[in-house]
Amino acid sequence: MMADPWKATVLTLFPEMFPGPLGISLAGRALEAGTWALDAVDIRSFATDRHRSVDDTPSGGGPGMVMRADVVAAAIDAVHGTGSAKPLIYLSPRGKPLDQERVRELAAGPGVTLLCGRFEGLDERVIEARGLEEVSLGDFVLSGGEPAALALLDAVVRLLPGVMGKEASGEEESFESGLLEYPQYTRPQLFEGREIPAVLTSGDHAKVKAWRRAMAEALTKERRPDLWEKFLASRSKDSRQ
Amino acid sequence: MMADPWKATVLTLFPEMFPGPLGISLAGRALEAGTWALDAVDIRSFATDRHRSVDDTPSGGGPGMVMRADVVAAAIDAVHGTGSAKPLIYLSPRGKPLDQERVRELAAGPGVTLLCGRFEGLDERVIEARGLEEVSLGDFVLSGGEPAALALLDAVVRLLPGVMGKEASGEEESFESGLLEYPQYTRPQLFEGREIPAVLTSGDHAKVKAWRRAMAEALTKERRPDLWEKFLASRSKDSRQ
Repeated sequence: MMADPWKATVLTLFPEMFPGPLGISLAGRALEAGTWALDAVDIRSFATDRHRSVDDTPSGGGPGMVMRADVVAAAIDAVHGTGSAKPLIYLSPRGKPLDQERVRELAAGPGVTLLCGRFEGLDERVIEARGLEEVSLGDFVLSGGEPAALALLDAVVRLLPGVMGKEASGEEESFESGLLEYPQYTRPQLFEGREIPAVLTSGDHAKVKAWRRAMAEALTKERRPDLWEKFLASRSKDSRQ
Repeated sequence: MMADPWKATVLTLFPEMFPGPLGISLAGRALEAGTWALDAVDIRSFATDRHRSVDDTPSGGGPGMVMRADVVAAAIDAVHGTGSAKPLIYLSPRGKPLDQERVRELAAGPGVTLLCGRFEGLDERVIEARGLEEVSLGDFVLSGGEPAALALLDAVVRLLPGVMGKEASGEEESFESGLLEYPQYTRPQLFEGREIPAVLTSGDHAKVKAWRRAMAEALTKERRPDLWEKFLASRSKDSRQ
């Protein structure tokens, strides 16, 4: 008997955007293999009036349209239920920025329900009433939650057991150690007069490891002082334990 | 005579991922209308050996594969050229996190060339030799640059002239003022016992504006102390000018 696959349910006005890029390459092969499952559900099918309207003008005025609380609540209740063990995430630039720690948590769970907003946003009352977790892809504004949902699912699916060719491949990359990734090189040995750093072709594994670590630390310190501070804080915490 | 459209060229191993979600809805209509143009170019067509290889094992060892400098350089040179006025961006978790300011700059320019990595990354020498600008979608790891390219393009395209129904719609949302967006409400007036805040249905535009501003400030302060600090700093700078 096979275990239930990791399951993503996406509430969207554009179900035809899914699986999209997730149907190709790494995520696509895993989808085909049944490692994960994806269900894109059209929010519009939960509209109750004869125009199938899902949005209305913002209370208090202003441009654009706001998604209705009642329609979205009906969609959530139909696919998510109240006792679900899965996180219920609303993709929104007001949310907590997505990071690799949250990605790992999601991959370790049974799946996720993702709500994609459009227009000016979502009626605040359904966010409160259904306790939606607001997650942001970053400090920029998308036309809707769909591109964010695609990116979030791509990040999670690659961490599911068996998806990456070598599981070890996930361990040394950016953020997994709290540092940006060290520079990589491959053949040819000489490219436009530039050589591969000699240490990498020395065959001395300890030296390679030390060089990579030093480069990752230097890069993080230079480019992302915010991550570097966090890294130092977590390291000093570890050493006190 | 029409002006040249805003032009995105994407270098990828998976050209079939494009336009994907960008062929639908807001971005899709703008693509069809010729407001922007998209060219997805297969990096593999620049491979020179008979196996059409684009990657090789990492120098110094380790899991995964690294994209070759020579193949990627040939692809860049073919589509981007040396005198291009367009930014040349490599989507990478080691890059500068994308923000709305960079999105606005990109939308104001002639277009962009995006390089999507796969595997463990890209040979560092081509990043240096071609002066690639590294941009990150956020502090998480994707299976490749493609989902990041889709999100970046979605964010940029919606800001192109004429793409949003009402251009004003872009001005009041998250990050455009340095603040997270205030809560939105729409009909019905009563949802599961929750009413729309009275101020929004008062018809007093000055009060509505003040309430929204206070809510946006409170939300930013609570959820994103980092943005709040930046907002205060830019406001005190403005008042000194």
